[in-house]
Amino acid sequence: MTKRKIINDPVYDGFLSVDDPVILQVIEHPWFQRQRRIKQLGLTYLVYPGAMHTRFSHMLGALNLIGRALEVLRQKGAEITDEECRGAKLAILLHDIGHGPFSHTSERVLVDVPHEEITLLMMQRINEEMGGALDIAIAIFSNTYHKHFLHQLVSSQLDMDRLDYLGRDSFFTGVSEGIVGTDRIISMLNVHDDELVVDEKGIYSVEKFIISRRLMYWQVYMHKTVIAADQLLLSILRRAKELNLSTFNFQLSTFDLDRFAEVDDDDIMVAVKHWQHSGDEILSTLCKNLVNRRLPAIRIANDPFADVQSSYFEGTGELHNRSYDFNDQEIKVLYKDGRCLPISEASDQLDRHFLEKQVIKYYHFYPKEF
Amino acid sequence: MTKRKIINDPVYDGFLSVDDPVILQVIEHPWFQRQRRIKQLGLTYLVYPGAMHTRFSHMLGALNLIGRALEVLRQKGAEITDEECRGAKLAILLHDIGHGPFSHTSERVLVDVPHEEITLLMMQRINEEMGGALDIAIAIFSNTYHKHFLHQLVSSQLDMDRLDYLGRDSFFTGVSEGIVGTDRIISMLNVHDDELVVDEKGIYSVEKFIISRRLMYWQVYMHKTVIAADQLLLSILRRAKELNLSTFNFQLSTFDLDRFAEVDDDDIMVAVKHWQHSGDEILSTLCKNLVNRRLPAIRIANDPFADVQSSYFEGTGELHNRSYDFNDQEIKVLYKDGRCLPISEASDQLDRHFLEKQVIKYYHFYPKEF
Amino acid sequence: MTKRKIINDPVYDGFLSVDDPVILQVIEHPWFQRQRRIKQLGLTYLVYPGAMHTRFSHMLGALNLIGRALEVLRQKGAEITDEECRGAKLAILLHDIGHGPFSHTSERVLVDVPHEEITLLMMQRINEEMGGALDIAIAIFSNTYHKHFLHQLVSSQLDMDRLDYLGRDSFFTGVSEGIVGTDRIISMLNVHDDELVVDEKGIYSVEKFIISRRLMYWQVYMHKTVIAADQLLLSILRRAKELNLSTFNFQLSTFDLDRFAEVDDDDIMVAVKHWQHSGDEILSTLCKNLVNRRLPAIRIANDPFADVQSSYFEGTGELHNRSYDFNDQEIKVLYKDGRCLPISEASDQLDRHFLEKQVIKYYHFYPKEF
Amino acid sequence: MTKRKIINDPVYDGFLSVDDPVILQVIEHPWFQRQRRIKQLGLTYLVYPGAMHTRFSHMLGALNLIGRALEVLRQKGAEITDEECRGAKLAILLHDIGHGPFSHTSERVLVDVPHEEITLLMMQRINEEMGGALDIAIAIFSNTYHKHFLHQLVSSQLDMDRLDYLGRDSFFTGVSEGIVGTDRIISMLNVHDDELVVDEKGIYSVEKFIISRRLMYWQVYMHKTVIAADQLLLSILRRAKELNLSTFNFQLSTFDLDRFAEVDDDDIMVAVKHWQHSGDEILSTLCKNLVNRRLPAIRIANDPFADVQSSYFEGTGELHNRSYDFNDQEIKVLYKDGRCLPISEASDQLDRHFLEKQVIKYYHFYPKEF
Repeated sequence: MTKRKIINDPVYDGFLSVDDPVILQVIEHPWFQRQRRIKQLGLTYLVYPGAMHTRFSHMLGALNLIGRALEVLRQKGAEITDEECRGAKLAILLHDIGHGPFSHTSERVLVDVPHEEITLLMMQRINEEMGGALDIAIAIFSNTYHKHFLHQLVSSQLDMDRLDYLGRDSFFTGVSEGIVGTDRIISMLNVHDDELVVDEKGIYSVEKFIISRRLMYWQVYMHKTVIAADQLLLSILRRAKELNLSTFNFQLSTFDLDRFAEVDDDDIMVAVKHWQHSGDEILSTLCKNLVNRRLPAIRIANDPFADVQSSYFEGTGELHNRSYDFNDQEIKVLYKDGRCLPISEASDQLDRHFLEKQVIKYYHFYPKEF
Repeated sequence: MTKRKIINDPVYDGFLSVDDPVILQVIEHPWFQRQRRIKQLGLTYLVYPGAMHTRFSHMLGALNLIGRALEVLRQKGAEITDEECRGAKLAILLHDIGHGPFSHTSERVLVDVPHEEITLLMMQRINEEMGGALDIAIAIFSNTYHKHFLHQLVSSQLDMDRLDYLGRDSFFTGVSEGIVGTDRIISMLNVHDDELVVDEKGIYSVEKFIISRRLMYWQVYMHKTVIAADQLLLSILRRAKELNLSTFNFQLSTFDLDRFAEVDDDDIMVAVKHWQHSGDEILSTLCKNLVNRRLPAIRIANDPFADVQSSYFEGTGELHNRSYDFNDQEIKVLYKDGRCLPISEASDQLDRHFLEKQVIKYYHFYPKEF
Repeated sequence: MTKRKIINDPVYDGFLSVDDPVILQVIEHPWFQRQRRIKQLGLTYLVYPGAMHTRFSHMLGALNLIGRALEVLRQKGAEITDEECRGAKLAILLHDIGHGPFSHTSERVLVDVPHEEITLLMMQRINEEMGGALDIAIAIFSNTYHKHFLHQLVSSQLDMDRLDYLGRDSFFTGVSEGIVGTDRIISMLNVHDDELVVDEKGIYSVEKFIISRRLMYWQVYMHKTVIAADQLLLSILRRAKELNLSTFNFQLSTFDLDRFAEVDDDDIMVAVKHWQHSGDEILSTLCKNLVNRRLPAIRIANDPFADVQSSYFEGTGELHNRSYDFNDQEIKVLYKDGRCLPISEASDQLDRHFLEKQVIKYYHFYPKEF
Repeated sequence: MTKRKIINDPVYDGFLSVDDPVILQVIEHPWFQRQRRIKQLGLTYLVYPGAMHTRFSHMLGALNLIGRALEVLRQKGAEITDEECRGAKLAILLHDIGHGPFSHTSERVLVDVPHEEITLLMMQRINEEMGGALDIAIAIFSNTYHKHFLHQLVSSQLDMDRLDYLGRDSFFTGVSEGIVGTDRIISMLNVHDDELVVDEKGIYSVEKFIISRRLMYWQVYMHKTVIAADQLLLSILRRAKELNLSTFNFQLSTFDLDRFAEVDDDDIMVAVKHWQHSGDEILSTLCKNLVNRRLPAIRIANDPFADVQSSYFEGTGELHNRSYDFNDQEIKVLYKDGRCLPISEASDQLDRHFLEKQVIKYYHFYPKEF
């Protein structure tokens, strides 16, 4: 009798059913389990208290979606072997495994290696442990596999990663802007000339997806209070490093995968709590502010801020958002008559002007009076 | 201009709006913010990965519900002053503030003081700091306030605490069994002879509420894998205490509120990760098992297990569940003709036989072969 | 290229995808399309304005669920041929096709043939038209097919009919009591000794299902105002028949399937509007009352009403509800150790006492003063 | 004791509570009850089977929303008397009362009076019957009331009408594109210089609202199969009129409000079913096609179709969609610093280019081969 695991997930129908022993083995791997202790959205929970969801749940959610997508593509005649199915599933399951705690912040101070590289290192190590079971997965992830559309399911402008995180982040923050017709989009996927494309009927859903992503950027991912909290954590990590207090420093030259895999959100937060009692007043003040959620004030403007003194308590920065990238490979729409057009030409809603527009905003954070 | 804070919450309509300065001050208190780092359901996330929600979000959710309930009661003619409204809100806002990390487990080893007592101690201290602003809240919480129904909103068999946690736990676990018609129940609340009662029309909703709670017990709160995880953590804490490694021990005689308030889920988990490298093989094995989610096997039976050797790796225990308590004060139903009957008499669905039935089950956990 | 039809459905993920040409042909049949004009819950929309949903949508919803159930059973090793899959799908798709307008009311006055019989007659006629394509479906529907569990998917105490209508009626009325973990229950289905059973892990979900159904009876299906509206329509149809005005009379001896298939909700309502202007004052009064929603008063009691004069404007009746029927075949639970027990023995929540209890209530409707 | 009516609504929390006796009286009016028999989206249910919801439910939903909006505005300091509250509520409650069956189609053939005019006529008549209770409501509806923002709640580019129908149509069709953060938008409403405005924080939600509305146009309101069905009904009504068979003709010169109020969806559909048996082959063919859902084929293009012969079975037309109208009064955003800018200037997402773009498409319907 096959071992079958049911993994509960409030986002999609309540659960995901897994029975592939190789996938189950990867899920049980300590490095995968570690992602239970790394929040998907870092400090965002300070603004959206429900946003405590983990990378672990996101990676399983993406696995759920790619399973459905592969089924749809097969039904429409795409040739995908069972081995390739497993490979694509493993690729998306592991696509974020290299993330450390508060990645977007910590990568700027602590870790001198991009998380994508760490992901590949970890995939390779797990592959060794499992006797090559991840060979296809790694090829798909690295985009060296000959069936290109499988990579696009894992990483492209319409990949299962984005589909899952938009829906999931929307669910846990309560921001309805990110609700996307996930099932509808997936049912419209198709393969044409080795490219992942969308059937004509799915064009409006794709437009909605692009716009939702854009709105989620401003409502959640770049919410100004989240930026303020990130800046505070950044200052803490910088100060601790300067004082040689941090034990979470990783450089590429001496990169120790096992040591890296031991660090998660909890370690950072416990260190921050500990440093509240540091003799260094700057560090202790910063840490007390984060622990008790006394965040810097922040303002946003369309033009850069001039004459701002940079310190641990004050500074400036830029926010970027582009809903859709023309330099990247475009999402393509497949018409009934066989034509295949990029969404920027196919859509009446999203003309190039709109899609291309990159919004840049500027922020200035500074001490709030308490 | 009044300061107004909007707190996002995915469970109810997306958000809660607060403008009472006293309530805002309490929410900003470090002891309240600390509950952001204590999960509502402890280790349940090892079974339901979405269940990362915190006591912080629950306490705000209960505040949301009591606000609506007070409005309904006033509309139906109950006399409630503005001061009493604030008092009831503060009472429910703080009703869980005394919880420490993994309370149900840690109270059996580390903390020799029930969390209800710690809650009262913390409320009293905050009250001092705020010059008596919590006087009414504390009276309502302690059930010494002359309007008894206000206490019942905070703590009774149909209080806003239970209403919130059932809906919230259901939302984050994805177990639909706990979905309760919260708005409907609240709209049916009334006051009769200083008792919180339910209008006749709400009888079915109350039945549903009682049954849902019962089902959530078995599906979530007493899920056997959660019990297994709790047992594992319990063994860890006991072993660490025996080895004099734990720094989280609190006794009533020497209880230090400030020290207690510094400990949260993160500290426990970081300690467990640290103890993986302990020289004590029992402790290190237990800790590795928890960190990597290698949980004990567990079986449940209707009769006690005999001849089980108790150790750090094996043991037995009991599970209790009673959907409704007759020894406690009953939920009462108010009829249009003025009669007021306990739900056990009013309901055709839930006869006393069913309501009273206390289910006891027995469990046996033991090492799983890996 | 296969013709594929996507049918939108707000209840499950937004849509259902159908590509079997036989099933598509049945859906396009005029008798099936006619069910678009027959509401699932008759006059219930006078109490729950959202409950305008049709038997058409229910029958497609049940098709959706049986498709998932068949997939689950096959994955667990049940032998089901493609022909049998189609047969089971067609059986549930057509299981309600014999319903006329306001069946539960009209069957008491207008139609002297139970809707189950009409369903079979219609299935047989469509089968003739389609050259025997429904042979297996009819056998499954009539419970003469040798694989008994297929019939149980269509008609039993845990069939896809009930699963769909509970969820659907709950969705459109807004009564959360009927929300059932449909996907979870379906994922727990299994086949054991040619019986449809539920895996051990699904026991709580089945309990929830039984209880939800019971609560939906009182909240929706037997809501007293719905009963009052039904009584009013019944009086109208009786009076119109007495006056030889009704053109919707069907007797078994002269049953004309084609004529019957022409009548739907719209005809009844247009006739009622027309009869508002009848010379018969009783009829015109009754009709004006229904059109303008001036419903009779109604009261419910645990004992029969005595000394009530029966008329077109006043009368009495009984309401029955039993959540679960012991005389019918029981829902069975399959344990990991191979045992298979009826739910009444397997459940700790639902003991026989509770399950068996048949609640009877009595109603008295009478003219309301306007 | 006040009479209180709870009206169930699956779209918002399950229900709406009404206790104003004047509003209750209007809801009970036969002309209001008649809207139970007129579907909000006409023949759209032929594409989205769940879309059976009525104008009755929409008008109550809009009442629900305006109630919340008025409360928010009062809390923010807007001066609104109780009489004005009632007036605004009655205005939105009745804003669609003049709709006849399949308005958008029937207005082109049967009814020579725009539904807005009929609405006003009906409001005036009800006002007479109720001794002037609707005076303020009519002034607000007609935009002659001195507090302009009250009219904007009822009719503007961000009125409660649109907010309700977007959410409601999305709910019943299952098209998630229309899900709007209704509560969030309402909580952001404000009044500035007698204008209804949106607080700065609500800017992204308003963008989402505008975009959602645009997407709902293409996904639902102008779905090509719905257009095809509308064309078929239009041909039927035209042919019946030509043959002097229609009894549903209304001209302004002889407009009979009482006669008009007797006609609803059911009458049209029963007539269509009746005309299936007409001696006129064109009419009978058209009617059979509609009854059995054999809709014309339809294609959509960006350029007009040339050389199409117009007949009862074939023809062409245009579709328009503009998400936002610059000629109409713009939605305005109120900043913390007191500035008040139109959304087209305030938004980074929606620049004028995008907002202004009116998409025109062309369709050609023609007989499908069966």
